Amino acid sequence: MKPNRPAALLARLSLACLASLAATAHADEGMWMPSQLPRIADALREAGYAGDPAALADLTAAPLNAVVRAGGGTGAFVSADGLVLTNHHVAYGVIQYNSTPQRNLIDAGYIAADRAAELPANPDFRILVTVGFDDVTAQVLGAARGKTGRAYHDAVDAASKRIVAECEREEGVRCSVVNMYNGAEFHRVRQLELRDVRLVYAPPRAIGNYGDEIDNFMWPRHTGDFTILRAYVGRDGKPAAYSPDNVPYNPPSHLRIAREGLREGDFAMLAGYPGITYRHRTAAEFAEQVEWTLPSRVAVLDELIGVIEEAGRQDPEARTRYASQLQSLKNNRKRAAGELDGLRRSDAVRRRAEDERQLLAATSGAVARDIAALRKVLERASAVRERDLLLGLLGQTQVLRSALTLERLRIEAGKPDAERESGYQQRDLALIEGTLRQVQRRYDPKVEQALLRVLLGRYQQLPDAQRLPEFDAAFGRTPAELDAALARLYGATRLGEEAVRLAALEAARNGQPLPEDPLLALAAQLVPAQMRLEDERKARDGELLRLRPAYMRALIAWRQQQGRAVYPDANGTLRVSYGRVQALQPRDAVSFAPVTTVAGIVEKHTGLAPFDAPQPLLEAIARGDFGDTADPVLGTQTVDFLTNLDTTGGNSGSPVLNARGELVGLNFDSNWEAVSASWWFDPRYKRAIHVDMRYMRWLMEKVYPAPHVLREMGL
Amino acid sequence: MKPNRPAALLARLSLACLASLAATAHADEGMWMPSQLPRIADALREAGYAGDPAALADLTAAPLNAVVRAGGGTGAFVSADGLVLTNHHVAYGVIQYNSTPQRNLIDAGYIAADRAAELPANPDFRILVTVGFDDVTAQVLGAARGKTGRAYHDAVDAASKRIVAECEREEGVRCSVVNMYNGAEFHRVRQLELRDVRLVYAPPRAIGNYGDEIDNFMWPRHTGDFTILRAYVGRDGKPAAYSPDNVPYNPPSHLRIAREGLREGDFAMLAGYPGITYRHRTAAEFAEQVEWTLPSRVAVLDELIGVIEEAGRQDPEARTRYASQLQSLKNNRKRAAGELDGLRRSDAVRRRAEDERQLLAATSGAVARDIAALRKVLERASAVRERDLLLGLLGQTQVLRSALTLERLRIEAGKPDAERESGYQQRDLALIEGTLRQVQRRYDPKVEQALLRVLLGRYQQLPDAQRLPEFDAAFGRTPAELDAALARLYGATRLGEEAVRLAALEAARNGQPLPEDPLLALAAQLVPAQMRLEDERKARDGELLRLRPAYMRALIAWRQQQGRAVYPDANGTLRVSYGRVQALQPRDAVSFAPVTTVAGIVEKHTGLAPFDAPQPLLEAIARGDFGDTADPVLGTQTVDFLTNLDTTGGNSGSPVLNARGELVGLNFDSNWEAVSASWWFDPRYKRAIHVDMRYMRWLMEKVYPAPHVLREMGL
Repeated sequence: MKPNRPAALLARLSLACLASLAATAHADEGMWMPSQLPRIADALREAGYAGDPAALADLTAAPLNAVVRAGGGTGAFVSADGLVLTNHHVAYGVIQYNSTPQRNLIDAGYIAADRAAELPANPDFRILVTVGFDDVTAQVLGAARGKTGRAYHDAVDAASKRIVAECEREEGVRCSVVNMYNGAEFHRVRQLELRDVRLVYAPPRAIGNYGDEIDNFMWPRHTGDFTILRAYVGRDGKPAAYSPDNVPYNPPSHLRIAREGLREGDFAMLAGYPGITYRHRTAAEFAEQVEWTLPSRVAVLDELIGVIEEAGRQDPEARTRYASQLQSLKNNRKRAAGELDGLRRSDAVRRRAEDERQLLAATSGAVARDIAALRKVLERASAVRERDLLLGLLGQTQVLRSALTLERLRIEAGKPDAERESGYQQRDLALIEGTLRQVQRRYDPKVEQALLRVLLGRYQQLPDAQRLPEFDAAFGRTPAELDAALARLYGATRLGEEAVRLAALEAARNGQPLPEDPLLALAAQLVPAQMRLEDERKARDGELLRLRPAYMRALIAWRQQQGRAVYPDANGTLRVSYGRVQALQPRDAVSFAPVTTVAGIVEKHTGLAPFDAPQPLLEAIARGDFGDTADPVLGTQTVDFLTNLDTTGGNSGSPVLNARGELVGLNFDSNWEAVSASWWFDPRYKRAIHVDMRYMRWLMEKVYPAPHVLREMGL
Repeated sequence: MKPNRPAALLARLSLACLASLAATAHADEGMWMPSQLPRIADALREAGYAGDPAALADLTAAPLNAVVRAGGGTGAFVSADGLVLTNHHVAYGVIQYNSTPQRNLIDAGYIAADRAAELPANPDFRILVTVGFDDVTAQVLGAARGKTGRAYHDAVDAASKRIVAECEREEGVRCSVVNMYNGAEFHRVRQLELRDVRLVYAPPRAIGNYGDEIDNFMWPRHTGDFTILRAYVGRDGKPAAYSPDNVPYNPPSHLRIAREGLREGDFAMLAGYPGITYRHRTAAEFAEQVEWTLPSRVAVLDELIGVIEEAGRQDPEARTRYASQLQSLKNNRKRAAGELDGLRRSDAVRRRAEDERQLLAATSGAVARDIAALRKVLERASAVRERDLLLGLLGQTQVLRSALTLERLRIEAGKPDAERESGYQQRDLALIEGTLRQVQRRYDPKVEQALLRVLLGRYQQLPDAQRLPEFDAAFGRTPAELDAALARLYGATRLGEEAVRLAALEAARNGQPLPEDPLLALAAQLVPAQMRLEDERKARDGELLRLRPAYMRALIAWRQQQGRAVYPDANGTLRVSYGRVQALQPRDAVSFAPVTTVAGIVEKHTGLAPFDAPQPLLEAIARGDFGDTADPVLGTQTVDFLTNLDTTGGNSGSPVLNARGELVGLNFDSNWEAVSASWWFDPRYKRAIHVDMRYMRWLMEKVYPAPHVLREMGL
């Protein structure tokens, strides 16, 4: 295609038209909307796909309607009677819910001998089957057009809520409005909400989570991270809460499990519900992420971690109380550091800046003006980034957070339920109560004050423009004043007592005055300031929602000049990525093969968790009785494999398909070098990690046999 | 060769004859004595050696006489004017000795602009050139024959000391008697002792020790671990202490540095002074090492480490004082754990046992009887192993060890110098004084008591047969009694004061009564018990010395049946190993290339030690100006490479030669999986790590140029 002058193109074409002009995919990057696949059919076929790309266009038809949301991840129907295959870690809550000290299914695994023995999941576990995906851009943006800032935000919000409410009138259906291409398009997603889900087959933890935190994000991997559930519906075929009278759900389609596996270089394809990516952010946002956000996050988290660890050394009781929070802080810190490493390794800031430079040179007119305005909004947000980071981390406290929640609930409770801020509506009360109760086991006043000394101490250093009068009044302007304020507040508060918190909850949920308490009095001072910041943020979000589409428009036009299609950033909707089984050379002289074998299970086995392979597994490996699940070339049993498929959080449990569309693997993790892929896809380092379906089959045939389940899956 | 009945063979042939019958080497295992090389000439040639194996037979002739002992490692002459190439870590003391805060050569590196600028080494640094290696078995064993136990030990000891004293009458020569094949043969080693050594070229620490402890034992590696020294002699050509009038030493031969490098699969050969191996130990000793010694060592060291770490958390002063001891304990612990892992991974206990079973089945007569007696001696040693481990670790204390040293010195000082126990002779006094002074910076009474509570607490649990009345009397039989004894001793001792220790040293070195002090009084109680144990140990050592040759005899005969030659265990004498450049597959799906490149330096660079590559190096890498030192296939600059050569501690600085005998690399480490190779050579995992001479040349040409030194080396 002959390049046209981009400005002219922009003026003539709508965004949707632009996106559809783009004809080829770039490298193996891409979380494609199913509707895009026919447009990149040539690239798909060239990569090795043997089926008809057009058949993948409709996410409400086979085969993609076999791919479902399961819990916080993805799953797939694998039998006509509603068997759902997903990850062990996605179904972990289901297994835990059915475990008791006497019958520990986490440790032992579970095989339902027949349908009567299938165990009901925790009542909040859901399987969602997408049954509609419709463009509602006109409806959503109709009322917003011409508005700016907070008004734009509120118009989009109100229109979305209206669409959802109308859609959910149909029983058993959950709806949402999702924003595609950063606000350029909106789609209504309709999903069948299957509420009766049961546990059919789970391997022991030491298989399903072999290696746990130590191997998390690591390759080579030796984890059998799979579990099989079954969806049930009422006798009328409609979604229903658990009942012994319910019957298995018959999905509109299901995936077939392949008998053969993949080898290096083979085509692979994956469908699932990736959560969020930032690939189409501006060069300034990339620079800020690498130069400020991630390093600052690492530094503050390091300080918080240090405070908790020091307290734990001095007081074993504090160590226990903060163990879980410490673990979570460390995970966050590790992820931030990994993302930073990766973005630097890929030189993402420079490359994105160079890309944007060319993009802007090819852009003019209204689009260019909107991009300039977008940049200004982002700059305004950056001006208060230090404050926002620190105040955001107040959520790391226990009783202060409780006080702030209670005061905010008291305020929201004065409004009609539908008008309340989300998180403070009737349906949120159970969660709030649970959190308030949990404080009991997780709070130590000395540690909380030490954490606040870090956060508010840093806050006190900020320039006037970033500080808030309410916070200055409450905590003073010097470390000495801060110490005195904390000593006074924590010396007198009774919010450390569960009964006091629950009494305050009772008052707050009814909009009544809260009990006398210095921390609740403090919250009454601070929450108005928080709400003011929230208003500012919503106004800013409205502007971003209004202006980002211009950037996307310019980006898509520029990519079209380059002959490349553009996928929208991940937003929890069904996407497809394709690529191949690929080795990884993460560092000089280091090479990882793309397929692991059971030999690695034995090598890693120490007898201590998380490397405590079960005896029956070790014995089966020693016997070497792999039968037709063995890899014919390697001559042994494979375990996991590695592809270059484009994934992110939410893709856990995504089915991996071969060139003929058969199920060959189950996605469960990505490698450490790929942590930064939520911002930047680097084909040298981005890999996804999958359970080989031959390993699952071998376990179910020879180690923890479940022939009836295999039969139902056609094996 | 047709197998003979081994018993008949044993009866007919001497050990030397047996060893020479063996005609082929096994896999790439072997630290060969040069004299053995002509006998395995076919294997050497088959492996790719292009030279004449007969030319390697004499370690006092070229090319092997270019290979020298340098400090605690190996080095090689690389110019006619006495340039010696060795590791940066071998020459570290020399660099440190010449560094001041104002002129930090460790950080900056050093290039002597001319000979006048070459900096004298610390006065105790030596380069030793082997000039004689003669069989003295008859002289050494003549007086021992017919004796047993302590008498056998003392006869060997006395004969050896006589031979050394006679040999050292020649000025400038250092002699020793070394035991080959575990006591079957003895050789006298004569070495020219070059005492004036000077620093010519050292790269900055961040090149010479890039990666430090983190990369220690690791592959892939990116360290330029080399330094160039020069040996000087008096104007008469004889060894002399440093003098500005001295002249460069002209070695009898020197190695030529190759212009090309090696690739995977290429032949490589290495000569050096490996320290100690245990490859020919009995199956029972292998089993004890894996099943008891290493796990017990790890467990006790873990407890000591825990005590020091806990103390450091409570007291920053204690943390500083014990930092160095903690580091050393952790290194020991890491090594022990690595050795244990490796021996288990190689299934060494079972394989050695199976090998020995066959060996014993082929053995009879006097040899078999001696082997049975050997086994009994080893069993007797095992019966007190717990005690010996714990009491050996009393050396981890500071003031208790000082007290024991002082008391022992007082006793030894009463004897003529030549009859004193080694370590307590006149020449050892400076070292003792240094150690006593050092206590000041490394001692905390609370920590020392905590360490003793671990060691003596465990000791108190031992059965009666392993305990000593003197220790029971001093420390009681219960933890409470131990606590009371320690509180009493450490409450009253003044040995924590340097002046008190030095006053005691003055008395001890003159054999006079020591000052009144509870710890010195304790030492007077304990040292006689220690000396009794020492006597027992010497008697046992005598028996081992007498009986092990029978085991070696049987082993050599059995290997001869298998058509395999046997090398003696390493003992600090010059050895040669040969093999090839080889990749490493340490674990399932993990593969390490055998050559690293400068890209890895950049990848590892964090800006913080030990990964703080110097700016000039980073810039030179970025420029990519590698010239003819680049690898023609990889198209970039190589750094280090990996071979399967057989090495152990002491091989640091060993020259690695190509098929034509040219210098291509400098050995400096081995991989983590090879830590267990001191007991068991596993060809799957045993690798040695070398600096590529092309990297050294590039650094000296383009990064920290020293054209005059390159010219002198013929480059």
